[in-house]
Amino acid sequence: MFSVALLSAGTAHAATDSATLGQVPGYFRQRIGDLTVTALFDGVVPLARSMLKDIDAKTVSALVANRYVPESKDGFQTAVNAYVVQHGDRVMLVDAGTAKCFGPTLGNVITNLRAAGYKPEDVDTVLVTHAHPDHLCGVATPQGAAAFPNAILWLAGADVDFWTGDEAQAKAPAPMQPLFDMARKAIAPYAAAGRLRRFGPGESIVPGVLAVATPGHTPGHTSFLFEAGRKERLLVWGDVLHYHAVQFARPQASFEADTDRRLAVRSRLDVMRRSAANGWWVAGAHLPFPGLGHVRREGDAFAWVPVEYGPVR
Amino acid sequence: MFSVALLSAGTAHAATDSATLGQVPGYFRQRIGDLTVTALFDGVVPLARSMLKDIDAKTVSALVANRYVPESKDGFQTAVNAYVVQHGDRVMLVDAGTAKCFGPTLGNVITNLRAAGYKPEDVDTVLVTHAHPDHLCGVATPQGAAAFPNAILWLAGADVDFWTGDEAQAKAPAPMQPLFDMARKAIAPYAAAGRLRRFGPGESIVPGVLAVATPGHTPGHTSFLFEAGRKERLLVWGDVLHYHAVQFARPQASFEADTDRRLAVRSRLDVMRRSAANGWWVAGAHLPFPGLGHVRREGDAFAWVPVEYGPVR
Repeated sequence: MFSVALLSAGTAHAATDSATLGQVPGYFRQRIGDLTVTALFDGVVPLARSMLKDIDAKTVSALVANRYVPESKDGFQTAVNAYVVQHGDRVMLVDAGTAKCFGPTLGNVITNLRAAGYKPEDVDTVLVTHAHPDHLCGVATPQGAAAFPNAILWLAGADVDFWTGDEAQAKAPAPMQPLFDMARKAIAPYAAAGRLRRFGPGESIVPGVLAVATPGHTPGHTSFLFEAGRKERLLVWGDVLHYHAVQFARPQASFEADTDRRLAVRSRLDVMRRSAANGWWVAGAHLPFPGLGHVRREGDAFAWVPVEYGPVR
Repeated sequence: MFSVALLSAGTAHAATDSATLGQVPGYFRQRIGDLTVTALFDGVVPLARSMLKDIDAKTVSALVANRYVPESKDGFQTAVNAYVVQHGDRVMLVDAGTAKCFGPTLGNVITNLRAAGYKPEDVDTVLVTHAHPDHLCGVATPQGAAAFPNAILWLAGADVDFWTGDEAQAKAPAPMQPLFDMARKAIAPYAAAGRLRRFGPGESIVPGVLAVATPGHTPGHTSFLFEAGRKERLLVWGDVLHYHAVQFARPQASFEADTDRRLAVRSRLDVMRRSAANGWWVAGAHLPFPGLGHVRREGDAFAWVPVEYGPVR
């Protein structure tokens, strides 16, 4: 049933070289009530299996195998996400990615912000969940200028004190030392311009945004609760968890890099309970990109319900 | 701490009009062994709650509420996906979307194929899981020409007979009548050019691709099992399920549009068991886009594990 004409037609075209085919751009749009939310992909970082604590190795193995988490010799592939939350003319960015602090697999927030239709100058407010490099470095350019020249930078006072002071650094182990300098450098251009704002737990930072204290991963770690309408809410929870395949099912499992592991577990349980009970939208910095969705109860623990891709209306 | 200079800088820029901000393009790339797989988003279709059968309404309500499925008055938002599977120079398309058969919320396969770096002329093989409009209409242009001018079109003989013959149409209810004409029209340009191929259950269609009979939704409904390497496999399963929030947890629940609901349940259970037991990659036409991932056992039933977004290496 083949004809010569057909066979030649079938071989006449130049085949596409699949090696050159890349991934779709790293942004994702979701309207939530009055808010237009854009998830931005900064990149991936490997998180070592050995840094999961307060859980036995066998349980970890069963959970990650069952959930098909990509793993290399360096650890589990873990996303780093940031979020633009626009309300009317107000353009707020929660976390800013890694810039050049952690190597070439990260640092794509600005590229993806532009791909998503924004310019860095559009951002008027930068809210940072905590002062770690993959959230904070991106507020500055590699040359040390403000990456968001029109923005006010908001950071919990407890994290400003901890990560830019000398006291904690003096006690910190060697691998943590660079983090202090990175935090100081990132904040510097905003501090110099009088555009750094400190806040405390439970404060209303800007209209419609509540700072929810979720300490443990760092002393000032904060989740931001956005009013999206009369009843709808979006909680951008930062680093409430790091190992999604493990810590929804076993919230008591903790991360070695947490400043206070017990407190981090308490914050995680509290915020998961509230998210599930209230049906809040959730955005997580280390949930699989876009990291938008909901938390549901699953017996004594929780499960992640990722947003469904769809057209934006 | 505000300065006049800052306030004016903050208001000088033109705010981005969020109403004009769209969704990221509808493609997603994943390497699986030797294969480069590209998911293509055709659009969304509402599937009515009332068309879910063999399950009580209360269980459905609990499942969909818990899984935050977007729902309008017409039904649950349900994705329509197609897949390009490239192996070396060979460019295979599984299912082709809806073209103009089902209105303006669908018909985006060609646009997203181009966004993903392919041209319709690159496709040498079109494999269609079954002869319904949202899988088959897209093989033809609205003018009745072959949309993939260099491709051979493969369709199960049982579906060619059923959907282009007169016998089944004579017995079919009124709402199903248009489907027969749509199937005839879509196939026509390939049949006229001698480029339509029928196949039977269990046949090796092209090198490295096995036709797995999964009948029930239609008489000839087929899933395609791709060899991706020595042990890795990708099963593109078409319409093995339609209501992901319900039918993984309750595989016995069926869809009113299934030609044979009991047979569809049997095929669904069989293919979910095999996918979970073998750790196959799965691609599903009505799973949330990109619809790529794995099936895991969850007690007596199953759960969907979506792929994680990441860079393509």
